[in-house]
This record gives sequence, C-alpha cells and structure tokens, in this order.
Amino acid sequence: MGKLLIVGSVAFDAIETPFGKTGKILGGAATFIGLAASQFKVKSAIVSVVGDDFPKSYLDLLEDRNIDISGIEIIKGGKTFYWKGKYHNDLNSRDTLVTELNTLANFNPIVPNGFMDADVVMLGNLHPNIQMSVINQMEKRPKLTILDTMNYWMDNTWDELMAVIQKIDVIAINDAEARQMTQEYSLVKAAAKIQEMGPKYVVIKKGEHGALLFHEEHIFFAPALPLEEVFDPTGAGDTFAGGFSGYLAEARNISFENMKNAIIQGSNLASFCVERFGTERMLELQRHEVENRLMQFKELTQFNIELN
Amino acid sequence: MGKLLIVGSVAFDAIETPFGKTGKILGGAATFIGLAASQFKVKSAIVSVVGDDFPKSYLDLLEDRNIDISGIEIIKGGKTFYWKGKYHNDLNSRDTLVTELNTLANFNPIVPNGFMDADVVMLGNLHPNIQMSVINQMEKRPKLTILDTMNYWMDNTWDELMAVIQKIDVIAINDAEARQMTQEYSLVKAAAKIQEMGPKYVVIKKGEHGALLFHEEHIFFAPALPLEEVFDPTGAGDTFAGGFSGYLAEARNISFENMKNAIIQGSNLASFCVERFGTERMLELQRHEVENRLMQFKELTQFNIELN
Repeated sequence: MGKLLIVGSVAFDAIETPFGKTGKILGGAATFIGLAASQFKVKSAIVSVVGDDFPKSYLDLLEDRNIDISGIEIIKGGKTFYWKGKYHNDLNSRDTLVTELNTLANFNPIVPNGFMDADVVMLGNLHPNIQMSVINQMEKRPKLTILDTMNYWMDNTWDELMAVIQKIDVIAINDAEARQMTQEYSLVKAAAKIQEMGPKYVVIKKGEHGALLFHEEHIFFAPALPLEEVFDPTGAGDTFAGGFSGYLAEARNISFENMKNAIIQGSNLASFCVERFGTERMLELQRHEVENRLMQFKELTQFNIELN
Repeated sequence: MGKLLIVGSVAFDAIETPFGKTGKILGGAATFIGLAASQFKVKSAIVSVVGDDFPKSYLDLLEDRNIDISGIEIIKGGKTFYWKGKYHNDLNSRDTLVTELNTLANFNPIVPNGFMDADVVMLGNLHPNIQMSVINQMEKRPKLTILDTMNYWMDNTWDELMAVIQKIDVIAINDAEARQMTQEYSLVKAAAKIQEMGPKYVVIKKGEHGALLFHEEHIFFAPALPLEEVFDPTGAGDTFAGGFSGYLAEARNISFENMKNAIIQGSNLASFCVERFGTERMLELQRHEVENRLMQFKELTQFNIELN
C-alpha cells in the first residue's frame, strides 16, 4: 500500500459565517489533509504538534481513520495552535480575528519510523524551515513531494521558501499567491515562472472558480462543483490537497494524465468539505457519496465533440 | 442547411486597454455573433440598423462570410450606434466613456424574407420590445430561441423583459446579471429561479472563469481557455453566443448533450476573440486554428476516472 506523509497544523478553529458560528472546533491543515486522504487506500501519518489542551477524542478521530498519529507531538503544559476567523457575506474573503501559534511556534517535526520512505510527502502550509527539515529526514527522494505555502512566507522568509521549492515536485497555491510570487497577472505566465523556480507541476487553486494544473506546455482545469450553498469554506484548500495527494499515493502513478484524476478527486472531496462547519462533513462522509459526486463531476465536464 | 437569425447591434466601438487604444472600429453584438457563427455551416442573417456613416467595406466583410445583410437597414442621414470604453488593468472591468444610441434608438427590426422560418434565433442584447417584435415576426416557433440581455433592461424594462423571457428557450447572461435578476447569490439557485421564469436552459457567463449551462437538475461547465495574455475582452460574450447558436443551427440537434458541445464551441471561439482588438482576430481566423484549439479544450477538461 502507498505511504503518505502529511506535515501541517493540527489545531483549534473558531469560525463565523453568515450562517452561524462555532466555538473552538477541530481544525488545522494536516487534519483536513488526513481526513481527505483517508478516503483512499493509503497508509498515512501526520507530523504535527499540539498542546495537552488538545482533546484525546480528536486524536482518536484521526486514529480511527487509520492515520498514524505517532508523529503528533503533545507538549506538556503547551497550548494548541488556534485560529479564529469571520467570513464576509459572499464567503470569498474573510478576516482573521485571532492567530495564536502556541506550540506551533517552536515546532520541530520528527518523521516517524516507517514513514521515512513515504511514496508521497504532503507539506502543508508552515514555515519553510519546518518543511525543509522534513524533506531532509527522508531516506530517499519520495516519488512525489507536494508543497502548500502562503503569502506570509513569501513576505517574510523568501530565501528559505526558494530553497524548499527547489526540492519539491508540485506546488499548490492560490491564484493571488501565484501572482504575488511571480509578479505576473496571467496565471499561464505565473505558472511558467514558478516551474523555472523548481517544481515541475504547479497547481493553482481558484476557490469557487476551480483549480488549474500546469506542467510544461500542458494545462488541466477542474471546476469547483456548483453548489446550492457554500456553508463554510474553511479547510477546502487542504481537503483538495488531501484528495490530490491521497489519490496519488494510492495509485503510485505520477503521470500527468493521472494527476488530472488527482485534481478531480481533490475537487470532489473539497465540494463536501464546504457543506458544513470545519471537519463535520468529512467525518461522516461515505464512499458511495464520494462516488456519486465523481459521477456529477463527469457530467459537469465531459463532452463529446468529434475531431478529425 | 440550418438557418440562424441574428438580431443585435452593428456598431462602431472605440476601445482602450492597458495594451493600446483604437479609433472607431467595427463592433456590435450582431457583428461578433455573425462572425463567430460563420465558422459553421449555416445560412445566417443579421437584423440590425446603421447610419449612412457606416462603411460599405464593413458590410462587405459580413457579406463575404455568407451572412445575409438584407435585414440591416441603412438610415439616410443617420448615425451608427457608437460605444467607447476603457478597460481597467486586470481587464475584468471597464468604464463606458461614450454611448450614442443614434439610429438604434428607433430601431424597428424587419426579419428578411427567407428567415421567418429560421431554425435558431439569436436575440442579442437590445430593448426587450425589439426582441419581442422579432419573435412575433417568426412564421412558427423556431427550434431554439436564445436571448442575451443586461442589467440596464432589468432596471428599466422589467415587465417587457419578463414577457420576452416567457417565449424563449435559452437565456445567456453573466453571473452578476443572474444574481440581480433573482436576488440569489448562489448561481445554482439563480439558475433554478430563472428556469421558473420561462427559459428551460440557462447559460451563465463568468468571463475568464468560464460558462455554466443549467437545465433541470443538470449542470455543465466549460472553462475559459487559460491564455498568456488577454488583449481585449470586447465582444467575447457575443462571440461565445455566436459559436453556441451557430453550432446548434448547423447541428439542428437541441439535446442537452449537444448543447454541451455548443458551450465548448462558443468558449473556443471566444478564446480567439480576446487575442486582438475588436473583430481583428475573428476576421482572420482559420478552420485549422479552431480545430487545434478544440483539441486543447479536450486536453484541458477531459479525464479518465473509472467508476463502478
């Protein structure tokens, strides 16, 4: 079975949308990635850190889905990373109300025994030095290393980020970040510039407008499934990354053609994530729901023009 | 051969983009629709009005493409509709600097003999009473009637617009207009409400974010082709409509499955339109370019996930 190593935050989120608000609930990039990846036949492990305020029941949720949590360090007396945000009416933008790094501020990732030879490494959005530390702990170069990052690291740790970017295969960022990174408005030009920086594959996430995959002169596009209502976008990008990396770890086929499928699998799972607060929907998601919606993606995008 | 009747403006445009500016050049919704439709094997005619300031060479351009122009009235001493606009840096929004309706203000459309039995009628963005007049001149209900409109008519002639909408099959509007028309932010909900108003098919154009086709519980999505550079978006929506209606008039197959192909054909032609100012690119477009780019659309969207 393919092995997937996930590095990222395991956290508390508090979310407010036009539809309601939550108290502190389960969140974090690695959590969403892990839950999405658990829809595939993979052996996965999360490397992260929490405080001893983090409920054992949340860790049990992950372990119940066959995610190895031995790499989640629990800091005695420490507090877990906490993010609080409020979405605007159209759900396309949000204000961050609270960011408490807490134990994540001094996070020293330790890759568990048995995952130093992972097939796929999914580096969630974190300080580039943490991402680099994980890369350096791998026994050999993984079949595929995927990186998420954000504007904060571009602003504050550009050199460190560039060093990491040279060692990965796929970068997954949003459209604004791709533009900031390259000073190019055209996403086609931005993706070409990013490929010159290192990663052979560039995934640009456009939220409700879908996701693009670039590789050399090839482009693939997956729409977001049009939904009656988006309830809470939190975690959608990480769920996309989890579906993408989980599918590729199961398939162990890293061709461009198969990456197209991975983009669709990621988009498919993200479409569930946004239907409820936080991880709620992902925690109860059933296999037949996933497959039915993949069928909807086919109906949504496949056509039959005969060409000579 | 399928017959396509096109109603809309034939006009002068003056355009400014970050890449340059033009003087008065050939423009108008019916012009772009006609040029796009001429890529298909159809007999098409334009119903419109111009002043005698309108160059014969422009009319010749249309006639050279086998477009029947006997329905383009030339008003002696009249001036042709003139629009001048300036695009913002991201090309997603623009300011209208000049709108002179001129001869279009008193436009009384006359459907030419030989087109009262058209298979497909494409009603470009005009006063709803003009659109209704054309509908009423048809000998029998066409196989398909497609309507474009805009926020101005929603604001000023709502009742007249609602009367027209009950008599058409497909409405093609942009996302902001769909939201204004229904007071629904979700495009899925907006499309459902619009179907209750009359048209069985709703096309929502999202510019650089593609186009959606809704029919009952079915949804199809076509992306815009990611381009290195969009040079001038003027006419892209009309070119899309021209490709959509031209393809359906040629095929004379109005199934949902075939409408998917029509959406792709429209998106494909629109991707050329934006590469140069105004009609420039469409006037020199070659068949093999159209087919090569259709292949790109396939690569961009088609995937191969096996489902049980």
